Amino acid sequence: MKRIADSTVRRLSMYLRYLEDLDTRGQHTASSDELAHLCGTTPAQVRKDLSFFGSFGKRGLGYPVHELTARLREILGLQREWKVVIIGAGKIGAALANYRGFRQRGFSVAGVYDNDPSKIGQPWGEAVIRPMDALVGDISADDAPIAVLAIPADGAQAVVDRIVAAGVRAILNFAPTQITVPPHVNLKSVNMAMELEGLSFALTNAGYLDEGAA
Amino acid sequence: MKRIADSTVRRLSMYLRYLEDLDTRGQHTASSDELAHLCGTTPAQVRKDLSFFGSFGKRGLGYPVHELTARLREILGLQREWKVVIIGAGKIGAALANYRGFRQRGFSVAGVYDNDPSKIGQPWGEAVIRPMDALVGDISADDAPIAVLAIPADGAQAVVDRIVAAGVRAILNFAPTQITVPPHVNLKSVNMAMELEGLSFALTNAGYLDEGAA
Repeated sequence: MKRIADSTVRRLSMYLRYLEDLDTRGQHTASSDELAHLCGTTPAQVRKDLSFFGSFGKRGLGYPVHELTARLREILGLQREWKVVIIGAGKIGAALANYRGFRQRGFSVAGVYDNDPSKIGQPWGEAVIRPMDALVGDISADDAPIAVLAIPADGAQAVVDRIVAAGVRAILNFAPTQITVPPHVNLKSVNMAMELEGLSFALTNAGYLDEGAA
Repeated sequence: MKRIADSTVRRLSMYLRYLEDLDTRGQHTASSDELAHLCGTTPAQVRKDLSFFGSFGKRGLGYPVHELTARLREILGLQREWKVVIIGAGKIGAALANYRGFRQRGFSVAGVYDNDPSKIGQPWGEAVIRPMDALVGDISADDAPIAVLAIPADGAQAVVDRIVAAGVRAILNFAPTQITVPPHVNLKSVNMAMELEGLSFALTNAGYLDEGAA
């Protein structure tokens, strides 16, 4: 089960969103066609993705919505609450801390950390901003939080090294830099400039193709 | 050239970052080993990625830093300025508008749009927040901006339909919902809850494996 592709996990998240929605509206079964349509993929892909995790549904009857919802929550590790620490009380950190979707999906903000003396002690949702120096001491190795890194590039690696040493095993990185972690630590990076560059590449490339066709 | 994988484009962005850095520091050549080490990939991958776009460097001499930097900027479409409109003047929008990396890489914020009457007219960096109703009229089809969608899920598709009709061909979506666009429009989505779910999946999965091994 270790080698499930990221793209598969993302689709599982998406199936779960739509199934929860269908469940709330009282729909009992969903076909692979319906899930595929909602999620912008193919029915064959839906069946393949879900077959990884056992047998769901009966041919011709579709997937049982409530049962599949519960199973996907379990597969994605959402049947428990995950603590999240937000490192950096800037705009990205604020956007994340205020994002209702997190709590709905079982992620709770356990703490927000910043180095700025004018921010330390300020209330932040249900938390209070704490100094970065307190971060390592606050991390309990037997219940290590997911860390969201929302700080500038400079010094990001040093912070990562400290929290990994303290027991953090999952990091969502918004710092615009490449960071490295040991193999047992899960890292995902979101780099907004790189996303935009992907778009400028696509636009530029389409331009070339258009010119070629003209 | 159309079918270059997203993951390749992301690595090109990363090579460019490090090459610019080396260029600034006056380094004239870089080996595929060096680029691979800096970017967390393999020398073979570096050579393969760069070979897509012509012949660079000489065997044993490494890549010419300045020349490759210029070529990568061209490949990624960064030799020109791209206008970006930010739709939604919330925290994500603010984080994006204030992100220095954008301007450094040739993206300029052409406008910020929101529906909230208390925000309209407020200064926002070098721009002023304009009403959503003005958005479609502001988009010029012959110089259409990249649109960054930083609004709630409700109504996101309706906004997308309107800006696509107005000529937008590239969208970076932060709205936590699946949106659909016609084939000629480039769409990238960043969904922070799904990134966290990817981490909870990895942590849960690692747990199962640990138990299995114990």
